[in-house]
Amino acid sequence: MSMRYIISFLLCLVTLSSISQNELMQKYDLMPWPKEVADNSQKFIIDRHFTIAVNDIENAKIFKSTTSFLRRLSGRTGVFIQKGFAVDTSEVKNPSLLINFERPGKLEINEDESFELVVTSMQITINAVTDIGVLRALETLLQLSSNTKTEFFFQGAIINDAPRFPWRGLMIDVARHYEPLDVLKRNLDAMALVKLNVFHWHLTDDQGFRVQVNSWPKLHELGSDKQYYTQNEIKELVQYASDLGIRVVPEFDIPGHATSWLVAYPEIASKDTIYEIERYAGIFDPTLDPTNNKTYGILNDVFSEMALLFPDKYFHIGGDENEGKHWDENKEIQAFKKKHDLKTNHELQNYFNIKVLEILKKNNKIMMGWDEIFQPNLPKNVVIHSWRGKESMLKAAKQGYKTVLSKGYYIDLLNSVTDHYNNEPIVESNGLTDEQLKNILGGEAAMWGELVTPLTIDSRIWPRTAAIAERFWSDKNVKDVKNMYKRLQTVSNRLEELGITHIRNRDVILRNISNYQNISSLINLTGICEPLKAYQRNKGGTEYKSYSPFTQFVDACNTDAVDARYFNENVDHYLQHPTEETKTILISLFDKWIQNNAEFIKINNNPMLNEIASLSQNLAEISSILKGQLQQSKFDSANYLYAQELLKELSMPTADTELAIVPGLKKLTSTMSD
Amino acid sequence: MSMRYIISFLLCLVTLSSISQNELMQKYDLMPWPKEVADNSQKFIIDRHFTIAVNDIENAKIFKSTTSFLRRLSGRTGVFIQKGFAVDTSEVKNPSLLINFERPGKLEINEDESFELVVTSMQITINAVTDIGVLRALETLLQLSSNTKTEFFFQGAIINDAPRFPWRGLMIDVARHYEPLDVLKRNLDAMALVKLNVFHWHLTDDQGFRVQVNSWPKLHELGSDKQYYTQNEIKELVQYASDLGIRVVPEFDIPGHATSWLVAYPEIASKDTIYEIERYAGIFDPTLDPTNNKTYGILNDVFSEMALLFPDKYFHIGGDENEGKHWDENKEIQAFKKKHDLKTNHELQNYFNIKVLEILKKNNKIMMGWDEIFQPNLPKNVVIHSWRGKESMLKAAKQGYKTVLSKGYYIDLLNSVTDHYNNEPIVESNGLTDEQLKNILGGEAAMWGELVTPLTIDSRIWPRTAAIAERFWSDKNVKDVKNMYKRLQTVSNRLEELGITHIRNRDVILRNISNYQNISSLINLTGICEPLKAYQRNKGGTEYKSYSPFTQFVDACNTDAVDARYFNENVDHYLQHPTEETKTILISLFDKWIQNNAEFIKINNNPMLNEIASLSQNLAEISSILKGQLQQSKFDSANYLYAQELLKELSMPTADTELAIVPGLKKLTSTMSD
Repeated sequence: MSMRYIISFLLCLVTLSSISQNELMQKYDLMPWPKEVADNSQKFIIDRHFTIAVNDIENAKIFKSTTSFLRRLSGRTGVFIQKGFAVDTSEVKNPSLLINFERPGKLEINEDESFELVVTSMQITINAVTDIGVLRALETLLQLSSNTKTEFFFQGAIINDAPRFPWRGLMIDVARHYEPLDVLKRNLDAMALVKLNVFHWHLTDDQGFRVQVNSWPKLHELGSDKQYYTQNEIKELVQYASDLGIRVVPEFDIPGHATSWLVAYPEIASKDTIYEIERYAGIFDPTLDPTNNKTYGILNDVFSEMALLFPDKYFHIGGDENEGKHWDENKEIQAFKKKHDLKTNHELQNYFNIKVLEILKKNNKIMMGWDEIFQPNLPKNVVIHSWRGKESMLKAAKQGYKTVLSKGYYIDLLNSVTDHYNNEPIVESNGLTDEQLKNILGGEAAMWGELVTPLTIDSRIWPRTAAIAERFWSDKNVKDVKNMYKRLQTVSNRLEELGITHIRNRDVILRNISNYQNISSLINLTGICEPLKAYQRNKGGTEYKSYSPFTQFVDACNTDAVDARYFNENVDHYLQHPTEETKTILISLFDKWIQNNAEFIKINNNPMLNEIASLSQNLAEISSILKGQLQQSKFDSANYLYAQELLKELSMPTADTELAIVPGLKKLTSTMSD
Repeated sequence: MSMRYIISFLLCLVTLSSISQNELMQKYDLMPWPKEVADNSQKFIIDRHFTIAVNDIENAKIFKSTTSFLRRLSGRTGVFIQKGFAVDTSEVKNPSLLINFERPGKLEINEDESFELVVTSMQITINAVTDIGVLRALETLLQLSSNTKTEFFFQGAIINDAPRFPWRGLMIDVARHYEPLDVLKRNLDAMALVKLNVFHWHLTDDQGFRVQVNSWPKLHELGSDKQYYTQNEIKELVQYASDLGIRVVPEFDIPGHATSWLVAYPEIASKDTIYEIERYAGIFDPTLDPTNNKTYGILNDVFSEMALLFPDKYFHIGGDENEGKHWDENKEIQAFKKKHDLKTNHELQNYFNIKVLEILKKNNKIMMGWDEIFQPNLPKNVVIHSWRGKESMLKAAKQGYKTVLSKGYYIDLLNSVTDHYNNEPIVESNGLTDEQLKNILGGEAAMWGELVTPLTIDSRIWPRTAAIAERFWSDKNVKDVKNMYKRLQTVSNRLEELGITHIRNRDVILRNISNYQNISSLINLTGICEPLKAYQRNKGGTEYKSYSPFTQFVDACNTDAVDARYFNENVDHYLQHPTEETKTILISLFDKWIQNNAEFIKINNNPMLNEIASLSQNLAEISSILKGQLQQSKFDSANYLYAQELLKELSMPTADTELAIVPGLKKLTSTMSD
């Protein structure tokens, strides 16, 4: 067996084409891009006789992942694969896919996830140190599937792969909006598809306490609107993640962001008042009382209980955005600060953190917290989670703290994927030694939940997070944005196959707001409208409550609107090379938007479309003007002025979206007067 | 409060328009249709100030259902309802919706589900005996929502409602294909929407044993491919159903359909052989040994354990399709029959059933089984579940047995909804006394799982089951098929809103088989192609294994294809009244199908489309001929012969679908030679 592997490997080497990295990235839609990949110009045909053999089929991760692999492959291709399960190596001669691994992996940081994957026309082999490496390899193999008009096949390749960073995470905030277990499960599936390995579960915040706690049950009873995970569900999710080679790091955000704790137990608050679950978004004042022994009593019980529920070594205590207003208002807390020589609220929070650290240590956990916990006197064995900037991350790493970066990966900002993709964690000339660089464990995409529900959360996470996953896994030199977009499109399709709802739920929203009429005109508008970025949608956090409707046109829109990118690019082409060809592309887009308004008007009988009507109308009008301009190439000052007026309106947010073709429209309009 | 109710009720009566049942059914898209409806020509405007008050907000069912009501209403309308939760009657003056009920309902058969719902322009009131009645009323109220271009409102109405039958069920078979909990939960939501109240959970069969059993753990360990519900999940689902006023009746199918039991414990089989989980569909021979004490030992332990897990009084033991082949082959069983004077295998099975009945009685359960358990000597307190015919149901009812009907409601046959809707359970001149008629408890739609997966099951259940639900709830005189189709369309949309995936997942399948290109040509084809009916898709059960791909074109098709119905109707219109108008409709459909083939050809680059290509081509050609014929109205014998040839091909199944416009095409073609 190992002999056969060596031979096929040698055979491959012989026939390797010498093509460039660029060409490889055109050929293979792999994401994250592997460490080493070579093209052997072969392909493995997928037919009903496909079989898998493994050296240890009793391994539960391997059984589940190979079974799931076969279902996904069969579902994608329609091939009636006769053998529905992988078998032991001894049970089949010449399996199509031969898997070998050395040992079960541990769900710990720095566990070996490396693998070799070789696809020849004769056989596919996976070799890995751990079963987790096998999972990673199976995902890569599924990304190699392709088809002609008559057959499906795996692209031939020789791949050696291993991650750049050991900590590659996605944080999901289930406090602002509760997300049922199935939403989390499908997102874990998607994480595994792009080789993310840490699910950071933001479980408590002002808007909700989402875990059943037996020691202090009012936390979930009063702090959750009855929307919480039972301990059985937590165990189920941790197991589900584990089967995918994903660690689960829970976050209980304290001492701020803690209204839901105080709804349950106001006696540990810093201010004597009546607490209610927060319905708005923002930074609020309710804070645990760091001078009250009962606070630590409750924290001790809750965290000791949670420590058993969450097996991972790391335990996130939040610690962010505590402005200490209620501390300042409380005379006893002021007296306490004086007595203990704590000059600032930061020092008081540090005092608090060190007490919490003792509780976690006792429970054999490593403490992790956001930037703000990084204070002098903090022991070195805590992890600093940077959300405010790379500088603080580098500073912490330099001082010997382990760090994880989320600054630049806040996907709820709804910025373009390009921004996140270009956000290289480790800047040049960072002044760190190689040893200090190792303190940078990796990063996490952060999905804050104020504006998402089960209907929309997938579209806010995916496909962008796949590009972030590549940033964490692949070499820093993998950074061709245009090629990333090409590969991301394929990953996006595969995510749909896996159950992610980012595409299908767009149409669900559009059907509702159109009274279930023909939605093609609305789909076209989502091709050029993007949700407002950088929290402009809910300025000040007071427009949307947690139970406001997230079923609007904007919720069907997404970043990186596809027609908008195409239009803006082609405006640039046209302005550089005003050929008939580039002109034709622009004119056909203008025709589309002119026609679209006519279609839109037919279905415009639902109040939820009111705000869109003027957008659609203005778009049709400016399209008409610019089309005329392109065709006639002569200046008409009345048209120009009217176009300027329309542009002004189109540049304003509409129904919480922005028209992403405005840059191109502006450029074209400005040429009218040239 | 009750005074106010009376006054508003009187006000309504004063302004009641006297319109016919027909007009009412045009106005209101209610399904199931209520017992009594009156139109008061009013409407209640839905705005941000909408509030709900209840006389007991501590009731968990009421808290959950009113919260869910508010989320659904807000999501549907986009209205930012300020008050996110219902409150106690004492806390708000003049609530928009005032709910009163007398007591918590019990999840038992014959519990009171009646309600009064009055919508005036001033207020909406719900009065019910039980909280379950309130749930039913809230669903009706949501069905009254409507909109103009500028506002949303509830249609004014005075409704008095109560069900015709107390047992209104949906059976889902999770043995042939495992369905994760979230699939079942969304189907329970949908059941509640149409007032079904029994979830019959077919948990075991030859292809899988889907429950964790602690007393005999190999059942789930070896009998399920690791796809089973933990006991915690069962409890969770039972609670979820209970919150919706739905009972859960488990089925453990014995003594046949029991391969999965024997994979775990071959020692209780009737034949000494090696058992493996069945991968095909059909009727198989493995059968429990009714002469072996260990069989009853295991059944006693398992059922006693399950009795605690499933609180409902009723317990379904299957009992169907045992052909007794392995009994005939076993000499000891033959000897046993002689010794106990059991002449036939039916008598042996009756012996078995009576032993099982003792176990269930001891656990305080009422036994239920399919037709085959209906044998002389069977005690009267068992329920006969008729799948073979109404005659056996009537016979059983006449003899004093309680009965439930599923014959005519097998939705996996993929027949038209019309068939199920027209299937009145109680035929005229049935010869039963009024007392005997009460033995007919109701019916169940039956979703057998051989050909469905989580991706497709919703589209096989919905929307058709809504029409069946109406058959069980509404008066037998509610039977206008055309109007049913109109109301069903609205229900179908509301089911999508609720999370049912019957519409969205069609596109998921089509995107995959088209390599994620433009799927509009495929959507058009699903408008006229229907899945093969009556199990023709998997003749003999040997083409599809349980893990074969159900991701094909046919899986995106559904019964009652919408363009097909439209076309066939319009052919009839045209043939009766060959006006320009009817001609134009037909020609525009032919144009659509001609154009469609051109679009299809552009995307035809995936092997999964191969079989569709000729269908699309032939359709375009016959469309072209018939269009020409309609336009020219002169006979062309060559065209006629070619059309006949095309029709022959189009009448053959393609890719497991049938072309549902063939009847109309045939009629039109035959007129060519007239």
